[in-house]
Amino acid sequence: MLPMIVDFIYKEGDWSIFLISALITAVTGGGLMLLGRGAKGLRHREGFAIVSFGWTLIGIAGALPFVLSGVIPSFTDAVFESISGFTTTGSTIMTNIEGVCEAHHGIIFWRALIQWLGGMGIVVFALAILPLLGVGGMQLFRAESPGPNTEKLTPRIKETARLLWVVYLLITIAEVIMLMAVGRMGLFDSLCHSFTTMATGGFSTLDSSVGGFGSAAVEWIIILFMFIAGVNFSLHYLAVSGKPQRYWQDDEFRFYFKMLVISSAMIIAVLIPSGFFSNISDAVRGSIFQVVSICTTTGYGSSDYMLWPPFTHAILLFLMGIGGCAGSTGGGIKMMRVLLILKHGHAEMKKLLHPRAVYSIWFNKRSIPQSLMTNVLGFFLLFMLVFVAGILVLTLTGNDIVTAVGATAATLGNIGPGLGMVGPTCNFAFMSGGEKWFLTFLMLVGRLEIYTFLILLLPATWRRM
Amino acid sequence: MLPMIVDFIYKEGDWSIFLISALITAVTGGGLMLLGRGAKGLRHREGFAIVSFGWTLIGIAGALPFVLSGVIPSFTDAVFESISGFTTTGSTIMTNIEGVCEAHHGIIFWRALIQWLGGMGIVVFALAILPLLGVGGMQLFRAESPGPNTEKLTPRIKETARLLWVVYLLITIAEVIMLMAVGRMGLFDSLCHSFTTMATGGFSTLDSSVGGFGSAAVEWIIILFMFIAGVNFSLHYLAVSGKPQRYWQDDEFRFYFKMLVISSAMIIAVLIPSGFFSNISDAVRGSIFQVVSICTTTGYGSSDYMLWPPFTHAILLFLMGIGGCAGSTGGGIKMMRVLLILKHGHAEMKKLLHPRAVYSIWFNKRSIPQSLMTNVLGFFLLFMLVFVAGILVLTLTGNDIVTAVGATAATLGNIGPGLGMVGPTCNFAFMSGGEKWFLTFLMLVGRLEIYTFLILLLPATWRRM
Repeated sequence: MLPMIVDFIYKEGDWSIFLISALITAVTGGGLMLLGRGAKGLRHREGFAIVSFGWTLIGIAGALPFVLSGVIPSFTDAVFESISGFTTTGSTIMTNIEGVCEAHHGIIFWRALIQWLGGMGIVVFALAILPLLGVGGMQLFRAESPGPNTEKLTPRIKETARLLWVVYLLITIAEVIMLMAVGRMGLFDSLCHSFTTMATGGFSTLDSSVGGFGSAAVEWIIILFMFIAGVNFSLHYLAVSGKPQRYWQDDEFRFYFKMLVISSAMIIAVLIPSGFFSNISDAVRGSIFQVVSICTTTGYGSSDYMLWPPFTHAILLFLMGIGGCAGSTGGGIKMMRVLLILKHGHAEMKKLLHPRAVYSIWFNKRSIPQSLMTNVLGFFLLFMLVFVAGILVLTLTGNDIVTAVGATAATLGNIGPGLGMVGPTCNFAFMSGGEKWFLTFLMLVGRLEIYTFLILLLPATWRRM
Repeated sequence: MLPMIVDFIYKEGDWSIFLISALITAVTGGGLMLLGRGAKGLRHREGFAIVSFGWTLIGIAGALPFVLSGVIPSFTDAVFESISGFTTTGSTIMTNIEGVCEAHHGIIFWRALIQWLGGMGIVVFALAILPLLGVGGMQLFRAESPGPNTEKLTPRIKETARLLWVVYLLITIAEVIMLMAVGRMGLFDSLCHSFTTMATGGFSTLDSSVGGFGSAAVEWIIILFMFIAGVNFSLHYLAVSGKPQRYWQDDEFRFYFKMLVISSAMIIAVLIPSGFFSNISDAVRGSIFQVVSICTTTGYGSSDYMLWPPFTHAILLFLMGIGGCAGSTGGGIKMMRVLLILKHGHAEMKKLLHPRAVYSIWFNKRSIPQSLMTNVLGFFLLFMLVFVAGILVLTLTGNDIVTAVGATAATLGNIGPGLGMVGPTCNFAFMSGGEKWFLTFLMLVGRLEIYTFLILLLPATWRRM
């Protein structure tokens, strides 16, 4: 309904498209609700199936306005764009966004809005549902997610979701106001960019992305809000409730902050002498923008980093893999897991020196049980396995190694742009239909924390009990 | 002394070089023995230090003939070549091997011999010493390594080493005889190639490597012996003792065999239609040769795989990472660990479905304790961490990403040739001195199973107890 209002304002005649899409979705959704009535006793495997199929169906529903308006005539392309939106990936197959925007503001608004909705969806999923399903260390947040600590599942999920929505909305409004205050963006651009910043999605209204606005102030504001969106939303909730000191007390937050500072410093140190930027303040802002954009898996571009020295590519590639904090809208492996994995490696080395000593791994002043550690390590291994499989499939279909690595990282990590042929100035339009479906699959696998989706491929999941 | 005999036969006047090198090594070694007399009560950390510094010192000693003969005038280059030999990596900085060989048969013989010695060294290290140090899952072989099962350390290591030497020597002799029987290689070439095949080292006497002999029979024989060298030598020992059925009973052996068959089949399927080879039998042999050469981390070349389709690069790159079986002369992460890691991932997924069930991981009919599993996972993580660090360093010094990835994989995995600028037809001569020392370091880290060397970088190792 919201893009319909946008269309009314711009009087571009797309309103019926949105109405038809809404009706199709409502009827399908209503039908599924009726079908599912009376089902009781949700097991773990039903939980995984509901999340996976739900996200896929929502993605297909989101593609309707693109197809019906004729803006993206191919169904494959429209689903790619829509799931790229809902998973807050931000990979695009659209090549002339500004041209489309002139005639279809509603469609471009919808494209940004689905990222925003997807971003909130993933935060609720990560903080309210995943801890219950026991996936990849998210159990750590069971006690910490906002909402009343009752034993009953449904009211708790609802209450958590409501509180997180309020926080998310407040921060988004703050960004809209700040962007408009600069004077370089109107309400439309400010809204769209705020939506996609908070979702760490990265869809822009310009083909040249944020860099196209040519404003240092806009870039600094977006750096700030990308940084905020990459933080665990439980912490924002606590800050809003009067406990801002919890940010710096959080091990993951400090790790995230230090990673960004160190990576930016290294890239600045390499970029300044390379002469890529004409002055130091541009080099500093350009480096920080790209580091935060990639690490939070937003994927906005302000500069063509493929032209930077290879050392910066190596750093950006590793940041892609790490991603944002757990419980943020960011993708990737997540800061928390990387931190736990590093602590585990250190503990294993110390164990070799003193085989009879016992070393605990600490996170936020709690000792991590071994079962949680093996769960996190299993997550990392599955991530690597899917990454390897992605590279194999994409080289088999004829891409070069750099493009295959870049495209797999960009979609599995929910970043958006990759390296090589899918670098920051390119897009995914040239890929074949089969490749696009495969990449869409990778976006979902990455967004639903690997386990959730892969578990459906396990024969044991489908066996009758 | 052996290369001295070779020099006497060819009458090339290098004999004094070898004599001087032997004297320097004997005096230094004797001095160190005197210094270390009376030291008692070896702790774990002393074990790690002895192995790490020992391997480094032996590497430097091995460089003496290269420097003294003037064949490799630079000390950096000579140490690179020597440690590349002793670690059975096979990366080379020599650009005109055939030219050197014409005037210095002794030196080229020495270059092959150090690989052979290093290969046996690593088998003894892996099967007799590592299980005692508790590194990366090698504890699994504690009961299985040959030699009497006594509680006393030193006699057991000695006896294990003696039995493994006999097996190693017998297989090497078999290869020499078979290679000579083909008629394309003389005794010198057969010896040198048998040394470097059994070590999965990959130094050749020709600049064009094994491909230069232009003989299908030679390539098939070398495929067979590379395959043998990539197997856990405990199994060869058992086979020689009348239990050949143990090969197929071994989980790791079956996994290794299947990996080679599947990888070869995939590469053959891509190479035949690509038209790279003019006939099918060449394509089949070329594919299998490269798969076995890379997977066992030998690194011989029979064809320039950088010209093959990118899909084959992806497969070869993953095989590089996996490497041979534990307890073989091969490098990489090792088949056993990859198999355990895959089983762990599978068990973690099943655990999510049935959170209260207990899943054991089985290897060779034994249930793997969780502490051993976290040790193996820790190994994998440290391997990845060093890999990442390697890429960062090598891009920082100005290499492109593909070369940096290839050079790190080639040295850390003890393979030899990499991708990009250090691909199969290139070598490491163009690298700077600093890069060569860094790559030498990576060879040692990889060869000594990561932990052994990295533990020396831990401040806790150097603290007084």
